Amino acid sequence: MTTTRMPLRECSLAVLLGCMAQASCLARSSGPLTIQEQGSFFVGGENRAVSQPAAGLMPAQTGDITVNQMYVEYQIPLHANRHVPVVFVHGCCLSSKTWETTPDGRIGWSEYFIRKGRPVYLADQVSRARSGFDPTPFTQARAGTLAHAQMPSILEATHQFAWVVFRFGPKFGEAFADEQFPVQSADELYKQMIPDLNATLPQDANPTWKHMAALAAKLHGAVLVGHSESGFFPARAALVDPSGVRGAVIIETGCEKLLPAQIAALARIPTLVMFGDHLGDVKGPFSWMAAYDSCNSYVEQLEKAGGDAEMMYLPTLGIKGNSHMLMQDKNSNQLADLLIAWIDRHVEHHAH
Amino acid sequence: MTTTRMPLRECSLAVLLGCMAQASCLARSSGPLTIQEQGSFFVGGENRAVSQPAAGLMPAQTGDITVNQMYVEYQIPLHANRHVPVVFVHGCCLSSKTWETTPDGRIGWSEYFIRKGRPVYLADQVSRARSGFDPTPFTQARAGTLAHAQMPSILEATHQFAWVVFRFGPKFGEAFADEQFPVQSADELYKQMIPDLNATLPQDANPTWKHMAALAAKLHGAVLVGHSESGFFPARAALVDPSGVRGAVIIETGCEKLLPAQIAALARIPTLVMFGDHLGDVKGPFSWMAAYDSCNSYVEQLEKAGGDAEMMYLPTLGIKGNSHMLMQDKNSNQLADLLIAWIDRHVEHHAH
Repeated sequence: MTTTRMPLRECSLAVLLGCMAQASCLARSSGPLTIQEQGSFFVGGENRAVSQPAAGLMPAQTGDITVNQMYVEYQIPLHANRHVPVVFVHGCCLSSKTWETTPDGRIGWSEYFIRKGRPVYLADQVSRARSGFDPTPFTQARAGTLAHAQMPSILEATHQFAWVVFRFGPKFGEAFADEQFPVQSADELYKQMIPDLNATLPQDANPTWKHMAALAAKLHGAVLVGHSESGFFPARAALVDPSGVRGAVIIETGCEKLLPAQIAALARIPTLVMFGDHLGDVKGPFSWMAAYDSCNSYVEQLEKAGGDAEMMYLPTLGIKGNSHMLMQDKNSNQLADLLIAWIDRHVEHHAH
Repeated sequence: MTTTRMPLRECSLAVLLGCMAQASCLARSSGPLTIQEQGSFFVGGENRAVSQPAAGLMPAQTGDITVNQMYVEYQIPLHANRHVPVVFVHGCCLSSKTWETTPDGRIGWSEYFIRKGRPVYLADQVSRARSGFDPTPFTQARAGTLAHAQMPSILEATHQFAWVVFRFGPKFGEAFADEQFPVQSADELYKQMIPDLNATLPQDANPTWKHMAALAAKLHGAVLVGHSESGFFPARAALVDPSGVRGAVIIETGCEKLLPAQIAALARIPTLVMFGDHLGDVKGPFSWMAAYDSCNSYVEQLEKAGGDAEMMYLPTLGIKGNSHMLMQDKNSNQLADLLIAWIDRHVEHHAH
């Protein structure tokens, strides 16, 4: 708990009121924050009959459970009706905690975007965290009605894996000289890493895709942001239903090879791809250079189809040392500003 | 998504500023809400070596994972330094969603308490939701190194179980005439119900207990609120370390039989037990009358030991029809007021 932000000095009412009369106060990264509305809800969900109930603390029970629902929490700041909502979806072995207070105790992209006047929606991927998961195959295997080897694999990233694949440094415990991730707080990131049950979902039709599309439509337009495992989900969501997808932000992932008709459909949606630094500087099971190349190809295909697509490779902007977890890096506010400026220009069409 | 609250009409700045100058505006259940500080963090967590890595989407990896951490999110309203923080912990097969927007789209106890000027902390139990769980036994069983029957049981409450055990009515689909749970929105509650992996934890030393105690100590005093599966956790936390536990609120659970020395220790902590209606009106695997009797006995023992303890059985106050999920019932704000008044009198010692 050493990384919890300490309570801020309370502003005087005069300071507060003075600030509230100016739009500029929304941009502060600390101090009081006025919320127009907040809450949480679910998108989707379907009944599943339970014929092999779990035995345990409560008596065995048959009936129906709900699976494949997606938990979403949101905050709408004051005067947010000027801006398009932003939906953030986390990556592998993580939850929406990704976007909240950073491992070293600074505000995350969620609160930063809110302070910039953006309605923010955080979704826990289907089968993760507050969205729950379908326990059926595990319960069946425990009872012996499903072969144990047929259970879905539960993915859990180790500290050692994360350090290198997330590009904190060339090997575990050793950081790059210009590393932007707050490596002294890596233990706090490890606490965010939880079991990933996406293997329980159909790989060709992850329910999170359709739920992201449904959420964007319900909001009458939203920018969808995906990261890593979910990096390409904004495009996948738009392929299900593009009607609400005002923009697609694809962060640090491999881009898929699509059919020409799919590219034509996605070219109608402004698209930003973002990558950090040291892509070629780590060895391991995953090639960041291959991921980068696949997304360069994707951006080129969108452009050739008449689309508004951009590859934002941070080192080319002179921004060095960013990790895979760039929303938690020490310059996370600067990167958020880049993303917000892109939304303003390419989605909301404001001059900058 | 039909139960999402609709965006509120935006108040004029004049109305807002007028309101902000009065403490009374903090008590509104809608309209802008000013937050002094918000965020999330983890309490606890320990390393576990992974020798049997999962095979799947990513290459098998050995190393360390973090387990038994407890995710906590919080909001501190303006001028909250007048009040003791409140920590809410959810029950079986649920997450902190319990305390947020209700199934029928009203504000939950979390936001209601914040609007009453209370700092609010929501904890996902260890092994649930954003706290993650230890996947080791499942991964071992999948690989054949642990007998499948030795896997922990994953508990999932069915719709049919919840309807009766949560006392919406005498049988599934049939509500009590005076039922306070918004049964037309029961499907939204079912989406909150997620797999419960508490069987992966030691039953005699659930890590959530010590983490609740550590959180209360870190906050320099807090009221701990438990419900159902976690109903007795405030007492269990105080038995680990009473130093930060300013009050224990035990809602709708069975109370444990303790040793005299334990009762003597807990008698130093103001304690409130709360039960809803229809305790004897549902048949099933769980006896609410037995739970009620066990807590009456607990309250009596605390009183005999000189403690400040109260059984708040809502029907005796003329409040009828409350379900097990009373924080989501149609009169949830009224019940929150009762709880706040109890905190004011018995923990903060204000006259009412």
